[in-house]
Amino acid sequence: MRTFIVLGHRATTNPDFSLEDIPGTSGRLDILCRCINAAFVLSHGIRRDVQVFLVLGGGEPHKTLWLKGQELRHLNPDERTTAALLKKALALAAEREWSRSTPGISVRAGGLEELLQDLRSMKLFYLREDGADVRSTCSDISGGAFLLGDHLGMLPEEELLAEEAGAEIVSVGPVSLHADHCIVLLNWLIDTGSV
Amino acid sequence: MRTFIVLGHRATTNPDFSLEDIPGTSGRLDILCRCINAAFVLSHGIRRDVQVFLVLGGGEPHKTLWLKGQELRHLNPDERTTAALLKKALALAAEREWSRSTPGISVRAGGLEELLQDLRSMKLFYLREDGADVRSTCSDISGGAFLLGDHLGMLPEEELLAEEAGAEIVSVGPVSLHADHCIVLLNWLIDTGSV
Repeated sequence: MRTFIVLGHRATTNPDFSLEDIPGTSGRLDILCRCINAAFVLSHGIRRDVQVFLVLGGGEPHKTLWLKGQELRHLNPDERTTAALLKKALALAAEREWSRSTPGISVRAGGLEELLQDLRSMKLFYLREDGADVRSTCSDISGGAFLLGDHLGMLPEEELLAEEAGAEIVSVGPVSLHADHCIVLLNWLIDTGSV
Repeated sequence: MRTFIVLGHRATTNPDFSLEDIPGTSGRLDILCRCINAAFVLSHGIRRDVQVFLVLGGGEPHKTLWLKGQELRHLNPDERTTAALLKKALALAAEREWSRSTPGISVRAGGLEELLQDLRSMKLFYLREDGADVRSTCSDISGGAFLLGDHLGMLPEEELLAEEAGAEIVSVGPVSLHADHCIVLLNWLIDTGSV
């Protein structure tokens, strides 16, 4: 299982955003939609061995969305259709426990701290520009959880949480890339056994 | 200079598509928008050393769009904004010569044959699932032109044009990926000097 955790610092926690202007009305949920595409979409199907957690920090309480490749349905590659799926999940009342929206998509109240607690049995890799090249790590990344920031990077308290969770700080190379492009690369590095 | 050529077999050649339903009304221009993002977008800017040609086959005559990183402005990472730029270019009267739309975006009538003729001085790499691993090629790919199909793959006459242009058939690995993900990988392979 490959696990991607993406932080959307201003990403809205409510469904009242416009599908006609996702970047302008949703706190950049478009970034997270592209990460979903990068994580799951293959030329002829969906990666079933992937799960994605989106941590939405644009409302109180924070919410977390959980997308499971094993169960996902109705996922198209375009941003708008993906945003519509997220909108549906955000319309549910988010409790402390996971509530299922459409197949493979669940939501709950809570943010990064709760999530890292749940995933504490996994090896955590925190993607940061100045990290060591992921190809040089001695750890097996294939079953790891990858933590990625959005366009705002990572807050000090999030860095601390990652550190406390024993995260290894890695990068995918010399050029600073968007989170979705990093996910494409991580999938490929694992596919090709390059790490 | 890195050059990406993407074929949109049903991609509309006229601007009368809906930004509210790009996949359903434009002959899958959304695929080409994601390729533009993959080719140009960096975390803090635009790749200036990249150019992209989109060959639109969803109308007669075919049209070709040319995006030049050196001059591009107003490019946001989301699909809708990119589609709006393409819509603007398609509203121009396309002649045999390039007509400039917004900065860095031009359009002309004509398809793959004319384009490959223009680019004949470049080494051409045709991305196909059963190609040799691009990392094993002896050719220098950094200044090459990469030809990619959309969800419909490549037509026999296009294969023939590629062959006549001396294209080397390569792939990016064992898993069949969408064109935009291939572009992310090619950019990264060149960035990291992996090929």
